[in-house]
Order: sequence, then structure tokens, then C-alpha cells
Amino acid sequence: MVKQLNEGILKEVIVKRPADSYKGDYGHVLLIGGDKQYGGAITMAAQAAVSSGAGLVTVASDSVNRSALHSRVPEAMFVDWSDLEVLMEQIDRSDVVLLGSGMGLSEYAVSLVKRVLMQVSSKQVLVVDGSALTIVAQENLMFPRETFTIATPHQVEWERLSKIQLNYQHEIQMNDVQRQMLNIDILVLKQHHTVIYSSDGQTELEQGGPYQAVGGMGDVLAGIIAAFVGQFKFNMTQTVEAAVYAHTALADQMAAYNYIVRPSLLADGMANFMARYQSNFD
Amino acid sequence: MVKQLNEGILKEVIVKRPADSYKGDYGHVLLIGGDKQYGGAITMAAQAAVSSGAGLVTVASDSVNRSALHSRVPEAMFVDWSDLEVLMEQIDRSDVVLLGSGMGLSEYAVSLVKRVLMQVSSKQVLVVDGSALTIVAQENLMFPRETFTIATPHQVEWERLSKIQLNYQHEIQMNDVQRQMLNIDILVLKQHHTVIYSSDGQTELEQGGPYQAVGGMGDVLAGIIAAFVGQFKFNMTQTVEAAVYAHTALADQMAAYNYIVRPSLLADGMANFMARYQSNFD
Amino acid sequence: MVKQLNEGILKEVIVKRPADSYKGDYGHVLLIGGDKQYGGAITMAAQAAVSSGAGLVTVASDSVNRSALHSRVPEAMFVDWSDLEVLMEQIDRSDVVLLGSGMGLSEYAVSLVKRVLMQVSSKQVLVVDGSALTIVAQENLMFPRETFTIATPHQVEWERLSKIQLNYQHEIQMNDVQRQMLNIDILVLKQHHTVIYSSDGQTELEQGGPYQAVGGMGDVLAGIIAAFVGQFKFNMTQTVEAAVYAHTALADQMAAYNYIVRPSLLADGMANFMARYQSNFD
Amino acid sequence: MVKQLNEGILKEVIVKRPADSYKGDYGHVLLIGGDKQYGGAITMAAQAAVSSGAGLVTVASDSVNRSALHSRVPEAMFVDWSDLEVLMEQIDRSDVVLLGSGMGLSEYAVSLVKRVLMQVSSKQVLVVDGSALTIVAQENLMFPRETFTIATPHQVEWERLSKIQLNYQHEIQMNDVQRQMLNIDILVLKQHHTVIYSSDGQTELEQGGPYQAVGGMGDVLAGIIAAFVGQFKFNMTQTVEAAVYAHTALADQMAAYNYIVRPSLLADGMANFMARYQSNFD
Repeated sequence: MVKQLNEGILKEVIVKRPADSYKGDYGHVLLIGGDKQYGGAITMAAQAAVSSGAGLVTVASDSVNRSALHSRVPEAMFVDWSDLEVLMEQIDRSDVVLLGSGMGLSEYAVSLVKRVLMQVSSKQVLVVDGSALTIVAQENLMFPRETFTIATPHQVEWERLSKIQLNYQHEIQMNDVQRQMLNIDILVLKQHHTVIYSSDGQTELEQGGPYQAVGGMGDVLAGIIAAFVGQFKFNMTQTVEAAVYAHTALADQMAAYNYIVRPSLLADGMANFMARYQSNFD
Repeated sequence: MVKQLNEGILKEVIVKRPADSYKGDYGHVLLIGGDKQYGGAITMAAQAAVSSGAGLVTVASDSVNRSALHSRVPEAMFVDWSDLEVLMEQIDRSDVVLLGSGMGLSEYAVSLVKRVLMQVSSKQVLVVDGSALTIVAQENLMFPRETFTIATPHQVEWERLSKIQLNYQHEIQMNDVQRQMLNIDILVLKQHHTVIYSSDGQTELEQGGPYQAVGGMGDVLAGIIAAFVGQFKFNMTQTVEAAVYAHTALADQMAAYNYIVRPSLLADGMANFMARYQSNFD
Repeated sequence: MVKQLNEGILKEVIVKRPADSYKGDYGHVLLIGGDKQYGGAITMAAQAAVSSGAGLVTVASDSVNRSALHSRVPEAMFVDWSDLEVLMEQIDRSDVVLLGSGMGLSEYAVSLVKRVLMQVSSKQVLVVDGSALTIVAQENLMFPRETFTIATPHQVEWERLSKIQLNYQHEIQMNDVQRQMLNIDILVLKQHHTVIYSSDGQTELEQGGPYQAVGGMGDVLAGIIAAFVGQFKFNMTQTVEAAVYAHTALADQMAAYNYIVRPSLLADGMANFMARYQSNFD
Repeated sequence: MVKQLNEGILKEVIVKRPADSYKGDYGHVLLIGGDKQYGGAITMAAQAAVSSGAGLVTVASDSVNRSALHSRVPEAMFVDWSDLEVLMEQIDRSDVVLLGSGMGLSEYAVSLVKRVLMQVSSKQVLVVDGSALTIVAQENLMFPRETFTIATPHQVEWERLSKIQLNYQHEIQMNDVQRQMLNIDILVLKQHHTVIYSSDGQTELEQGGPYQAVGGMGDVLAGIIAAFVGQFKFNMTQTVEAAVYAHTALADQMAAYNYIVRPSLLADGMANFMARYQSNFD
């Protein structure tokens, strides 16, 4: 049986913050991605992470992306991803690592994915998105067993990872055996109606529409998931469900006055959206 | 007989998107332009293409323009136009190629125009704007016969291309013989009242005003045309008519509270404009 | 007798544009300034020029300023000011040259001021602002006799240029002899109540307030003057008066809800301001 | 006895400016910080300083931060902090020096902190924030005796500086002996309820909430303090109290419609906030 997501998940997860708390309580999120071609992707993920409430956000990217990032998100810190020593230190200090948005498929990207998968530990939650998923599939890599891992493929990326052909995805999807073989704790399978798989079962998102069919939407979703996971000390599945629901619910609201929803605007709108749905329970 | 454009064209073309659709369904638009002097032009074209609903937008430009592009349009991907191999691959993957906005008249620009005209095939629609039109005229190049080609000259550029002197343009304009000689499928002749010529005949735009007399307006129009052509599976002439009409209708609305209409603001306003005029037919 | 400026000057100068007109009719404005330290100044001048209705705006500046300029004003074109050949061509094609905003006092700036003063002809209007005024004073340069010249010093800069000590400026100010000696056609002397001197006499601005005491206000004024002079075919003194009045009237309006008025916001607000004050006479 | 801050402090400090005044009357604020990693911090401090009414703002930073700074704050001037000669001249010309926001802990940062502490004189007010506080503690440096010094540590930074362990801070805090030993004239100790210590006693801020737990909030506060100190000729303690109160009061207002308050938006909102609280007394 597939559970349907509804607005209730927001009130459950987006709780009022305790008065006496600090940025360190809301997660240090490290976003790794953005090569010379896809730098906008990691910037949009950073916008989303900051606006969704991450306590601290650091972007590790190609140095050509520093200026544009800081023009849009001065709140984010920047690490040149070619400096591996600094990057590995950053991973150790992080609570959440988002790997893959706009990172491309270059040799360096491949080596970086391998290096990051080795460095993360049980102290981090790992969110894997975009080209990092393709790299994991192509290189037959394993997600790290001791790190809680959330993967956010669209259907073609899932086909590469799971070896389940697109046509069969609706029937087979992800069962427990597969989940354990791949070391994916939560799978967010992006499709017409996004489905979330975890050991808690399967949840479907009925909301959303074709106004979301814009390059960059996935990067923003990944940033929101990373921020939610970093700050909400809660059942992990429900936290991811809330992130997925929030992303689409805000898009739906924006679609009332936009033919398409620009991902960068959606990202910046999260702080306001969350205020309207936070519960007063803390 | 010259047909007059009116608001009806918007409802015909800007239809509600089918629910189960993906960014790939709305066109991969490649924008080639922007040298060290005119980088703002290609950025404004990209703003327009993203805001008008293109599924994916890639900009190929001089690398000095990457930061400003991503500051304004993180949704767009970036290719350094000096890397010809990557650029040619991008062309092959594109549904629409916009060539010329702010690309200048350098030797490199000339060689690039020649190279792009050779690379495009029947799989792409080609939109040719700005300095690429001057280069085609100066170098006596031909538009590719197998590629559907839309040219968007202003009157002086048209004079260069067609060898029809400015004074005679109102009388002669473009007839079928000329259209076939030049391999232009649709001509958008920008003048006081813009006229669109195609095998379907001739359409005139009565709307618009002198608040549009700002550098950059043409770049935004080119971006809108590219996005429309990439996403609306429709009679091509009517799709271009809708793009031309939308560009000017939004300018007219903005002119109610602006002495001049800034092209960059017009570009960003398209997503909202289109929402107000979309038909519910899908 | 000193004439007081009032709102009437706006209706006289900011006329409705004729329907059949082109960006070439509204002036090609070239802004020269912005070294490695003061790049923001030329960007704010460009924002003001574009928003105030200049048909075409080109910025000649240090190349480090290109990205930030295009992030804020993609409508402006960019020329690296170290390429003198291109710069001199740009001057020849311009209707208005604004020289000096944020250009600094380096050796290169000095040589550039000398070169520009030699290149401008009777076809250009010259607006001289900021450090260019100090350079002209220090180097004992002359403004070009055949070019209509507008100088916009604050009091200390005027002291350097005119050799009239600050204490005596209220008594002496600029008489016809001085105006002719310095080859300044219009002097905009920025002080508590700005005064405009020309062969038409003397006009004072009573409006304005201390919320304008923010670095960058003068750069924005220079950009507005350049745009007005480029587009309004009118008595030159009144055109400058309208620019000065508009700059301060908009600041006054913004001060109703801002403790200080940010020059960059004032610049972007000009298109809206002008719409509210344009006359329907054309 | 600990005094509680309330809205009254705003009316006392944020007075209407005298009509006949100039940007020089409102302070030249020099902000030193922002390395290759933390460039966003100094940009947010600059946004805050400009929006809060500083007459002139100069940023001394790593040159990689110039473009993003000018994209967001063209009002600020820029000095490459590796050019020590120019930087020392800038210090001499400044009324307020803010040292430390996002400057990191590199060898160069250490040498720079030492150099700046030697260069400031009785003519400047010094605000020390962020990593500069850690450097002062690690290197056992002294704040300069002849310069009025405001330190803005959070609790961990204060522990390093004062050698008072975190657990004991509530009991001991800063007494007169410590204040004189460290040469800190005003201590702004950032914690759940921020406390301000000076020779005038101790003031506590009850306002504020966990929506402020976002990286960058401290940088914005430092920028507001620098701007207030530069422009308000007033009891220094009360001026700092007003800055601290304003920063949090605006955050509280923004939290009504934002789950978290983005520091960059708070910074830009200061000009409007101050207009609503200025007194008409001048």
C-alpha cells in the first residue's frame, strides 16, 4: 500500500525552534558540485539550503563559481574543490553532505565522488544527486554502509543505478533487498508523481505539475532535503517527506501566477513558505 | 493583405501543459553569443528563455561572461565558446539554436557563425539574431537548407541581408522568391510596426511603443522566440507570432508605470505574463 | 536673481516620446570611469543612465568591473578602458561622454583624461564628474572649446578647478568670465542646495536632504544627466535642470520610508519616476 | 543590576539628520575581512553598513571578492588587502575600522591583524569581530590602548579571549578589571540574550529568537555597529546598544513571515527600519 503525502507532514516536521539555540544546532551542510559548465546548479542548491534554514552552508565547487555564488548567496561559505585537504576537513566538520548537483562527469568529478564516499562517516548524512548518481552507476561504486544515505535520482538515473529498466520501474520499484544491496536508506525517485522509498515503506506525492519542468528544479529539491535533514531531529523518512512535499507545495502556489516556476525563485521563497506552515509545537 | 496580430494568438499558442511531462519536452535551447563587449546581451536572452518556459537553457559565450550570467540566471548552463568540440556536441543535443545575440564581428565570431551553420541539422530550429545576421550578409553565407530558420533583423540588418535598400523595404519586403533564395523560413522584421513573413503570408504588429527603444530589447525577443519554438508543438508561424506579440504586450503593460521598459525586467516578467494568458486547452 | 527649480521643469523636459522612434534617437551614452577601487561608481552611473532612458549605454572601465556591471546592468555594453583604440572609436560614435565617475587619480587615469579631452568633438556633449575634475585641476587642463561641457563638482572639487576658496564660493560662484575661461557651459555645483550656472543664469535647488549624504549619490546624478542630455532635444540648461531636479525629487520620495537613500536603488527607480512626471506633449 | 534594552534606545540614538550635512559627516567606515572562503561575510557587513547610513564604506578584502561585493553593494569601495600601503592609508582616513568578518585564520590574516592593531590611532573607533578575535586570543595580542575598541564575540570566542570558561561566563562575565586588562571599551557578548558591557554597566537584550541562528547574522550586526558608531555623535555605549537592538528588532519583525531570517535581507532592510524609528529631534 502506498501512502499519499499531504500537508500534515509539514506541521509534523517544521516545528518551532527552541528559543535558546544556535546556528550549530541547525546543521552544517556541505554542498559539493558545480563544475565550469553547471555552476548555477550548486548555487541554486545553496540558495535553497540557506533559505530552508540550514545553520551553516558551505559550497565546494570549481573556483569559477565563487563570484556568482556570493552574488546570490553571501550566507554560503566557499571552498575550492580542487583543494582536497581542505575539502576533506570540511566533510569531517559537516552534518550533511550533498554530493553531485551540477558536478558533471569529468575525470576529476569521478575521482571526487570516490574520495567523498570514502571520507564520509556515520557522523554525516549523505544526499546524492545528479551526476554523482551516474558516476556511482558507471563506476560500480557502493554507497557507504555506515553513512545514512539519501539518493534523489530521476527515472533515467535510477535505471542506471538499479539496473531496472524504465518500463519496469512502476512494477518493481525498490524493495528491501535492493535497498540493502545499494546501501540507500531513502530513495526519492523523481517522476510524474515522486515516490519516496525507505524501510518505513513507500510514500507518493500526488501534487506537482508541469510548471516544474524546468532545469534546476532538482538542484533546489536536493538543497531543501539537505537543510531539512540538518536541522530537524526527527524520523528521517518523515523529514525527507516534508522536504519533498514543501518543494512541490510551494511550486504549486507559485504556479498560480507563473506559467513556469523558476527554481531560483522557489529556492528564495522557502523561508517564507516554512513560516506559514510551521507548527507551534517545540 | 496584411493580417494584424491580436491577443487571440496568445491563447492559441500558450496552452496548458500536459500533467505528465518533463523538462525534455519543453526544448533544449542553446544560445550562442556574448563576446567580451556585449556579454549582457546573451545574459538577457537567457533570462528571457528561462522565464518563458524553455526546459533547458545552455549559453555558449566568452568565458568572461560566466559569472554575470550565473548571477542573474543560475538556471542556465554555460559552455565556453572557444571549446569547439563541446560546443558542437551541444548543438547536436539542442532542439533550438539561437545564434548571434551580442556576439560581435570579430574573426572568431565569423568563424563560429560559419561553423554553426554547418553543424545544425534538420533536428534543430535555428534563430538568427544580431551580429550573426551581419556576418551572414558580409560573408555571403547561406542559411542551411535543411534547418528551419527564423531570422530577426532590424531594418538595417535586413538591408544588408536582402540587399533591399531601407527606403524600398515597405514596398518590396520579402516575397516567396526571396524567402527561398535566402533559406529563411520566417522573417521577423523589427521596425516601428514589426512584420512577420512566412509561407503563411504576412502579419503585422500594431502594438508597441517608443518605451521599447532601449538597447537589449531585441536580445530579449530572440530569447522568447527560442523558448516558444522549443516548447510549443504547433504551427511554427503562429508560435513565432505569439512570441512577438507577448514581448510587446508585456512591454505595453510595463510602460503604464515605466517611462522606458528595461529589457532585463521584461525578460524576468515573462513567466507571470504567460500565466495570465495561457489557455486551459491541453 | 536666483531662480528656484520646481516640479514644472519635469513636465517641460520629460515629454512623451514620438511613436515612430528608435534607440538611436535616445542617445548613445559612453561612461568612462571605474578603476580597481571604485568600480561600483561607474556601475551605479550605468544603472542610472539605462533606467533614465538612454538609448544605448557603453561603459569603459577596468576589466575587473565587467562582471559586477553585467550582474546589475546587462543592458550596458562594456569596453576595457586599456584598449585605447576601441575606446577612441566608441567616443566617436557617442552622443554623450560621461568622464570621471570612480576613475581614480592613477597615472593611467590622468593620461586617459587628457586623451579623452582631445578626442571629443562638437558631436559629443561632455559631462565631467568625480576624479576627472580633480585631474583637470591638478594638470591645469582645459575643457575642449568645441564640445558642450557640463561639469558636476562638489564644493571641494570646484575649489580645485576654479581656485575660488570654499569660503568665498557663496559670494563669487561662477560668473560669465569664469565660465568662458574654463570652457564650462553648464556648472552643476553640488552643495547643500545645489546650484546650476549657465549662460542662461543661475538656478537653485531647494529640495533634497541629508538622506542623500551617501557615497555614490553623485555618480547616479551624473548618469541621469548623461541620459537626459542624450535623449531630450531641448534647451540644454533646462534638460540639466530637469535631471538635477528628478534626482533629488525621487530621493525625497524614497526618504519617506528610508532613513538614507541608497544610490543604487534610486538609480533603478528612475524609469518609474519619469513615467509619473512625463507630459503628454510630444 | 542588568538594564534591559527597549525600543526607546532607537529614538534616543537614531535622530533626524541636520539638513546641511554631507557624507563626510556620517563616517568613513573601513571593513577589513573576507578571505577566499568567507567572502560573503564581508559583503554582508558592507550591505549592512551602507543600508544603516554610513557616509562612505570601503571594503579591504581578498581580490576574489570584488565582483560579488560590487554586484550586491556598488556603493562600497574596494581595496585589495594584499596592498598594505594602500590599506594603511585607508585606515588613516577612516573614522571606524571593522576588523575580522570572514577574514579566516591564515598566516596572512594573522599578520594583517597585527598590522592593523598597530596602525589604528585615537582617531578611529575599532570594531573587532569574527576570526580577528580568535587571532588576538591565539597570538596573545593586546587591543590598542589609545583606540576606542568594541569587541563582538560569541561565547566561544569570548572564552578564548577572556580565558573564562563557557560554564562560568554567566557568573563572571566582564568586570572593570578585565575590561581594562583587555583594552576593550565595549563588549557585545553574543549569546541567547546578548549582553553589552562597558564602563556604563551592563545591558541585556531580551528580544531575538532562533530564527536568527543563521550563518552571517554576526557579520551583519558588526556592519550595523560600525555604521552607527560612524554617524551618531553620541554616548558610545548607547550607540552600540541601539545597533544591537535594531539588528534584533528588525529580525523579530521579519520572523513574522520568515521561518529563518536571511542575514543579507536583514542588512538591506535597515534603511527602511531606521526610517520607522527615527526621532524628529535633531
